[in-house]
Amino acid sequence: MAATIFITGGARSGKSRLAEELALGYGAPLGYIATGRAGDAEMTERIARHRARRGPAWRTIEEPTDLATAIRGNEGSCKALLVDCVTLWLTNLLLQQGDAAPVLREVEALAHLFPTLGTPLILVSNEVGMGIVPDNGLARAFRDLAGEANELLAAAADEVYVMFSGLPLKLKG
Amino acid sequence: MAATIFITGGARSGKSRLAEELALGYGAPLGYIATGRAGDAEMTERIARHRARRGPAWRTIEEPTDLATAIRGNEGSCKALLVDCVTLWLTNLLLQQGDAAPVLREVEALAHLFPTLGTPLILVSNEVGMGIVPDNGLARAFRDLAGEANELLAAAADEVYVMFSGLPLKLKG
Amino acid sequence: MAATIFITGGARSGKSRLAEELALGYGAPLGYIATGRAGDAEMTERIARHRARRGPAWRTIEEPTDLATAIRGNEGSCKALLVDCVTLWLTNLLLQQGDAAPVLREVEALAHLFPTLGTPLILVSNEVGMGIVPDNGLARAFRDLAGEANELLAAAADEVYVMFSGLPLKLKG
Repeated sequence: MAATIFITGGARSGKSRLAEELALGYGAPLGYIATGRAGDAEMTERIARHRARRGPAWRTIEEPTDLATAIRGNEGSCKALLVDCVTLWLTNLLLQQGDAAPVLREVEALAHLFPTLGTPLILVSNEVGMGIVPDNGLARAFRDLAGEANELLAAAADEVYVMFSGLPLKLKG
Repeated sequence: MAATIFITGGARSGKSRLAEELALGYGAPLGYIATGRAGDAEMTERIARHRARRGPAWRTIEEPTDLATAIRGNEGSCKALLVDCVTLWLTNLLLQQGDAAPVLREVEALAHLFPTLGTPLILVSNEVGMGIVPDNGLARAFRDLAGEANELLAAAADEVYVMFSGLPLKLKG
Repeated sequence: MAATIFITGGARSGKSRLAEELALGYGAPLGYIATGRAGDAEMTERIARHRARRGPAWRTIEEPTDLATAIRGNEGSCKALLVDCVTLWLTNLLLQQGDAAPVLREVEALAHLFPTLGTPLILVSNEVGMGIVPDNGLARAFRDLAGEANELLAAAADEVYVMFSGLPLKLKG
């Protein structure tokens, strides 16, 4: 059984940097599973910047929704897999499904995968529930979903970190 | 003197679950002081879900504003009292009073109650000040009030926890 | 070389109070570099309240944008300098420059100043990236800038604290 590491924190808190550093400790090649869709200029620019930062050790796999298959399909050929990020995956699934209940079932299925993996898995997520309650009902529903998903995944992970101002705090493991 | 435990964190970060687990450690019966008003479908559904999760050890006391009286009136007949949550109580008081100053005086009065209680008290609150500054003046005022109230109550509590992704971090006690 | 201390946290989480306590440990006189502009009634009231709380040990220096010069110009005449806060400084610079890139260069220049200072420096900042992603593009850009600035400054600081409900958690030092 290989370790699963869950990293959460606010926007631009250094989560991806820590995740990449931890993955590089496992050697090469490494698999980077990108869940963001290059739907607008802002996201396209962010994806290109992240890709440029990563070196030749990395192979990029773009998978916005079917994370379990992307993990299963690449675990044999990589020293470690990094998913960046859980929050965009949840967003894509919620838009596809239109309701939180089936999305949470996919989160549970992902959590059940952890102990069966032969390759270390590092997941990057986001804390989105520490601001004022949003006016918008959809934003509130997403915030609740993201909180519940983080709780399920952190419970199943072997190590958990939360980032503040680029500094990690170990919560588990 | 019985212990007072203050639990804070983001939305759906596992605060209520931890609070319920800690309360169950004191035996039964337990008092659950619910401060939420079942004013809309979303809140009604949330209250019903929380109540269904709690078992027969719990007695529910609904009290949206007069927390001190609800605590005083039930401490003798319960092994522990749980208040869920401080943030909704502050919302109800702010709507009733229209101004933060008298609400903060009620928070101070509650904090002064802690060392006089004969029954363990567990308070669930929310971190709402770690997002972007809200445009809306009322939301800003509430965010400031919630931050000051959390500081007053955490200072008076014997144990304090903050939750991230369902995992507690002990800040005090 | 004198210590640089970086304190972050949510709104009204006790950051300024901790910063003032730490500064008072260095003796008197102390320099308080205020970056807020008294542009509206809310900010004017907040500045006056903070100033009233501080005692005669403090000299107030108002500097909304040129932080490096304010620090350099006052380090010789104070036992410690406190900057309150980094987030308002970033806001002022972003409004002045209209773009995040030159602001981040000023943040880097400030971070490079730390090891050259002869006086302890305490910086207060804010966590603004743990709420839901803002709709507004400018708010999103500011949130990213604030996250990156916090990471740069925390990396260069000797001690780093994050505050929750008035309680500090040491992340570094």
